[in-house]
Amino acid sequence: MPSQTNTERPSGKFLRNAWYVAGFSHELKQKPLLARTILSQPVLLYRDESGELAAIGNRCPHRFAPLSMGRLVGDQVRCIYHGLGFDRSGKCVHNPHGPTGSIAVPAFPLAERDGIVWIWMGEAALADLSTVPRFDRLDTAGYHVDYGYLHGSAHYELMSDNILDLSHIEFLHPALGTEAVSKAKVLVEQQPDRIVVTRRMRDEVLHPGLGGVYRTGTRPVNRTMTVSWAAPANLTLWVDVETIDDGQPWQSGSQSLHLFTPETDSSTHYFYVASLDREKADEATAESFFNALQRVFTTEDKPIIDAQAELIGHSDIMELKPALLPIDKANVFARRRLSKMIAQESGGPNHDSGS
Amino acid sequence: MPSQTNTERPSGKFLRNAWYVAGFSHELKQKPLLARTILSQPVLLYRDESGELAAIGNRCPHRFAPLSMGRLVGDQVRCIYHGLGFDRSGKCVHNPHGPTGSIAVPAFPLAERDGIVWIWMGEAALADLSTVPRFDRLDTAGYHVDYGYLHGSAHYELMSDNILDLSHIEFLHPALGTEAVSKAKVLVEQQPDRIVVTRRMRDEVLHPGLGGVYRTGTRPVNRTMTVSWAAPANLTLWVDVETIDDGQPWQSGSQSLHLFTPETDSSTHYFYVASLDREKADEATAESFFNALQRVFTTEDKPIIDAQAELIGHSDIMELKPALLPIDKANVFARRRLSKMIAQESGGPNHDSGS
Amino acid sequence: MPSQTNTERPSGKFLRNAWYVAGFSHELKQKPLLARTILSQPVLLYRDESGELAAIGNRCPHRFAPLSMGRLVGDQVRCIYHGLGFDRSGKCVHNPHGPTGSIAVPAFPLAERDGIVWIWMGEAALADLSTVPRFDRLDTAGYHVDYGYLHGSAHYELMSDNILDLSHIEFLHPALGTEAVSKAKVLVEQQPDRIVVTRRMRDEVLHPGLGGVYRTGTRPVNRTMTVSWAAPANLTLWVDVETIDDGQPWQSGSQSLHLFTPETDSSTHYFYVASLDREKADEATAESFFNALQRVFTTEDKPIIDAQAELIGHSDIMELKPALLPIDKANVFARRRLSKMIAQESGGPNHDSGS
Repeated sequence: MPSQTNTERPSGKFLRNAWYVAGFSHELKQKPLLARTILSQPVLLYRDESGELAAIGNRCPHRFAPLSMGRLVGDQVRCIYHGLGFDRSGKCVHNPHGPTGSIAVPAFPLAERDGIVWIWMGEAALADLSTVPRFDRLDTAGYHVDYGYLHGSAHYELMSDNILDLSHIEFLHPALGTEAVSKAKVLVEQQPDRIVVTRRMRDEVLHPGLGGVYRTGTRPVNRTMTVSWAAPANLTLWVDVETIDDGQPWQSGSQSLHLFTPETDSSTHYFYVASLDREKADEATAESFFNALQRVFTTEDKPIIDAQAELIGHSDIMELKPALLPIDKANVFARRRLSKMIAQESGGPNHDSGS
Repeated sequence: MPSQTNTERPSGKFLRNAWYVAGFSHELKQKPLLARTILSQPVLLYRDESGELAAIGNRCPHRFAPLSMGRLVGDQVRCIYHGLGFDRSGKCVHNPHGPTGSIAVPAFPLAERDGIVWIWMGEAALADLSTVPRFDRLDTAGYHVDYGYLHGSAHYELMSDNILDLSHIEFLHPALGTEAVSKAKVLVEQQPDRIVVTRRMRDEVLHPGLGGVYRTGTRPVNRTMTVSWAAPANLTLWVDVETIDDGQPWQSGSQSLHLFTPETDSSTHYFYVASLDREKADEATAESFFNALQRVFTTEDKPIIDAQAELIGHSDIMELKPALLPIDKANVFARRRLSKMIAQESGGPNHDSGS
Repeated sequence: MPSQTNTERPSGKFLRNAWYVAGFSHELKQKPLLARTILSQPVLLYRDESGELAAIGNRCPHRFAPLSMGRLVGDQVRCIYHGLGFDRSGKCVHNPHGPTGSIAVPAFPLAERDGIVWIWMGEAALADLSTVPRFDRLDTAGYHVDYGYLHGSAHYELMSDNILDLSHIEFLHPALGTEAVSKAKVLVEQQPDRIVVTRRMRDEVLHPGLGGVYRTGTRPVNRTMTVSWAAPANLTLWVDVETIDDGQPWQSGSQSLHLFTPETDSSTHYFYVASLDREKADEATAESFFNALQRVFTTEDKPIIDAQAELIGHSDIMELKPALLPIDKANVFARRRLSKMIAQESGGPNHDSGS
């Protein structure tokens, strides 16, 4: 398990006024007091007696014991060391040894949507619930949905670069690449709130695994991959496949979310959510698709990202002046936007909210 | 095994002119050349041919091989690498390759008392054998005595804070806490050479384990816990239990020593010694008591101290401005005294010895 | 496996214009794309389609993926991440996404001699194939030859010091030391391009293992050990043994190369090559000799070097002012020469080549 850091001060390197994934709803059932370092701050996530989620600093201000080692008593988290109790606002509301005074830990705005728990690490007054990211295809009535978590030992931008980059498919992922992939151009589109990358493969016979997932078998298909990046590092990847089956048009597809939350400067929480239409795929197909997604990332993407992180070391890849190619356009756009947002934020929390 | 550090210079953070536990007498039987880093200095402990203890620097000044890898030849420790021999004064007295010249390693004053080996890491001229700490209840004729060692991955003051702090009992140690504990006040007394903390529990029914150790069973008892801190970090904890058994007064109790020696800035040698009166407890009871002590520390105290150390990181807890509560009084007193002693010492070794 | 470092810039601490062992020829058969950090630079060694060796930077300049994770396509190494192809000159000659432009990785001069692959990490124009170190007794027709590799967690000079130092034999290596060894002086001779150390043992009965290797049994022998150091850290050790067997003179001997290449400031590639005359020793004798060499280094030398490195820490041993003895003469000479060469080189690559 990654260690928690020793400071609660912002590092100045992260976009703070943004919604980040803190975890999945189901994790809070498995672990009622969930400790997670987010943007280098120790955070405790839990659900109080009413079932409502709370997120407070995980470091007891008295002796710096992790509150996650304590227990839930009513709506309080009680520290295991000396019994101090904190409510969801972070305020100390129970002190068996005297008055609670002004003892407190930070508290963080939260939002729970579609099984995903979002946290706001910046200025609480700026947290706007209407801006919590939402995604289609997460209702389990219509979709098979799979939630997964991986810990990454690399900077989160290196990990989001990898998903936004559709140009590596045929090199890194033999089972996803075909002649048609090599011929297909990667198109990048800048939208006000996102960057969208598209790659359209024509007349392609999918590898048997994929042909099974999309029920296109060995028939020629048109396949479109679309990935959408939104700051700070939330990506959605759609694969749309169409073919003619027995004279009838057949359309299928999948969606996967790739949501990256910085743990520290050099490590990342990688939350992913994959969806497959129940009308187009049965349970077994979905399971094999979900397994394949994880296998591909774990055995093909992750080793490369870990190796990059090791060769890059403590530097930012951009400081090392990499050779920039046209295929890096989307990543350059995304990094530039994020840098600008971080710079604006450092100018003051209200800097870009008008005057 | 913790690694030895790479410098023989004082770090300026430790009280140097003080007796520290270097080890137990029985350890020297198990390991005739015992390497131990103390106050960040590599030390070699051994017993020479006459059976007398010696402590010298463990780093051969020729090629910096650890002398502990060598062997004892008469009253010399011979380096395994080139055969240089050093006597208990640290002087090189054997050089197979030429004259010994002024080659030497440091030598440290030692004292062996009641199975405990004490070392003086400061100015040798100031080492006063009459100030070596002594403790009652260590004679094995009258007491069951158990010696134990644990390595701690935290600053030694964080570890001694934990023992001096009687206010955490009912929170961290379920088997030691009762309603009576919660009602009992923690009293702190400053004495010239020590800080004494007391907590008196009245009309308490002990948990079955403790009731067995003190042979009070389920009868109501009065229990007094007293812990005494002496600089730099030597603590004694007494538990005294009294009850009425079959109309007769029954008194029992236990003693445990908690002696902390800094290994480095962030790691600690934890030596403990527990005693139980042979007249009040048989062998089996003593063994179960000793096991319980170690289990409680290992499974309840140590995880918290390790977690604190991780959240505190390289900082001193006081620099992070913890919320100070009245229950921290003893620790604040102890830390303040020790800081003052270290500051006085830094002003020169004779600074506080009059003029 | 040791990790690769994150910079391609010289550290200023190594002699750069020199031939270093990069590996053995047989390693390239076992691992067609061999990644190795040399002088803190990530290097990829491989053999192209024509069988010729190549050494280029292992860090793809595009996204910093290790090229060693890619594959060989014709005479190119193709990056696994985006398919960029590099030839043996380091130039990018294949870019599936557009023009190759000036994309390149460093390329390093190489030489393959007697199963040893030498690399030149300095200015390529200064690489002179006529200066590649050569050694006798490596032709397998006449000699049993054994190639071995060990990874060292110490500075390379600490490791080469140990081989150049013939004065530690009887202390560190019980099976190599006799009364005759203790009596034998260590002689040091400075030659223009090397430092030679000799120790001659007279009328010595070898330990049974050695008596078997040299087929001298329990007869008295004269044994001469000679070790020759050449910058930066390449050593040859000869053992020559002579005796009278059944009235006839009998001569035997062995050779071992100890070739040290800095991996980083604190770790070393240790390549060794041992030779035994086929006319004097059969296969089984050679195998037992080779095993003994490795056992001695692994169980006797390496633990001491590791322990030294730990006690020395990040310092250079010379900065810690070790007690210098007459037996250190060869090491002092060697270190002084190397320092001078590094200083001259830092004055500019052409500094000592005239003007």
